[in-house]
Amino acid sequence: MPAAIGFDGDDTLWHNETIFSMTQDRFRDLMVRYVPETEVDDRLIARERANLRLFGYGVKGFMLSMIETAIEVTGERISAGDIQRIIDFGKTMLDHPVELLDGVEETIDRLARRFPLYLITKGDLFDQESKIARSGLAERFQRIEIVSEKDEATYAQVLERAGIAPGDFLMVGNSVRSDILPVLAIGGRAVHIPYHITWAHEVVPMPDPQPGLTVLDSIRDLPGHLPD
Amino acid sequence: MPAAIGFDGDDTLWHNETIFSMTQDRFRDLMVRYVPETEVDDRLIARERANLRLFGYGVKGFMLSMIETAIEVTGERISAGDIQRIIDFGKTMLDHPVELLDGVEETIDRLARRFPLYLITKGDLFDQESKIARSGLAERFQRIEIVSEKDEATYAQVLERAGIAPGDFLMVGNSVRSDILPVLAIGGRAVHIPYHITWAHEVVPMPDPQPGLTVLDSIRDLPGHLPD
Repeated sequence: MPAAIGFDGDDTLWHNETIFSMTQDRFRDLMVRYVPETEVDDRLIARERANLRLFGYGVKGFMLSMIETAIEVTGERISAGDIQRIIDFGKTMLDHPVELLDGVEETIDRLARRFPLYLITKGDLFDQESKIARSGLAERFQRIEIVSEKDEATYAQVLERAGIAPGDFLMVGNSVRSDILPVLAIGGRAVHIPYHITWAHEVVPMPDPQPGLTVLDSIRDLPGHLPD
Repeated sequence: MPAAIGFDGDDTLWHNETIFSMTQDRFRDLMVRYVPETEVDDRLIARERANLRLFGYGVKGFMLSMIETAIEVTGERISAGDIQRIIDFGKTMLDHPVELLDGVEETIDRLARRFPLYLITKGDLFDQESKIARSGLAERFQRIEIVSEKDEATYAQVLERAGIAPGDFLMVGNSVRSDILPVLAIGGRAVHIPYHITWAHEVVPMPDPQPGLTVLDSIRDLPGHLPD
């Protein structure tokens, strides 16, 4: 019986990667006017990775990486009007309605009656706060932690502040790299609910089946997996 | 005798607005190649304000606002190479060494022995964390809160989480709008230490002298202002 359950936000509670992916499609369509159907995607991923050290995660950094990739890929031939188009793609992302995944609302409601729930999400502070507010779920969470990286140190710190031992904590999320491995590593339990798209940067090998790790198809299956 | 002292980061502990201002000079110099010595600054401020709702505070939003301003002001004539230059200005800001204001290190050291100190700063989560780490001051603060807006609700929430009554709290900062007025409004005390430049968005009329408000020239004067 966990003393608290943590949830990831993006692609666990609400759709996110589909919006990035849709934007990347629009970006590719724009680039194809300048360069042959090419390595646009690979160049963008490489640029995002190179910029992570300075930008961290989030839509604004993604916008800047798209602009830099466009300048590079076109050999500086991209027009200012098309750069404005890229900025507008990003603004559309920031303004995109928050769409909860199937079953999230009922499941979170139900679990909030039995457990303290934490929301532990990473990315732009401002954008994440806005999404949390628009999700309508904020009230259900006893703690909301927006962090810049989800590694062992981050989880250890969050749990210490909450006064919860790692062994009493269960984390639920779609990213093996950010939601599962670091929590298992500090002695917590984890439920992996894969999302149908994973950002290249987050892709790591699936962990072997092990005590403390559960894989579910849908958040709807979570209450049944918890002891009464 | 305060139960805790809060400090703003940017332009209270370390220089920030000078770096924005230096970048704005470089941006103006670049724009002047396209347009007459003009309303560049006003257009940039207007663009930043319009983008605040989507971008929040911080360098990445500033970079995007500079790019949009450049596209607007030049009627889409700006070259891709010059847009890359603007991105590079922003990257230089993000990588800029953190320079403490005069007297900060000694004063914080001295006060940390007598009071719990909180660092309460706003902006990009990732950029602020990086600056706090590079400042070398992180260990001196009992709590570090990076927030997206510094208003009455934010301060009330921070103090509630810390278990401190507003009347026992003293906030120290350079921004009347963000560090002084909201703290006075919830019943706390505030020390205003003006910085020599203030971002246009933060400029509000100085509050009248009132109980609970002190204005100092330098952080060096702070310990002498506190009761023994």
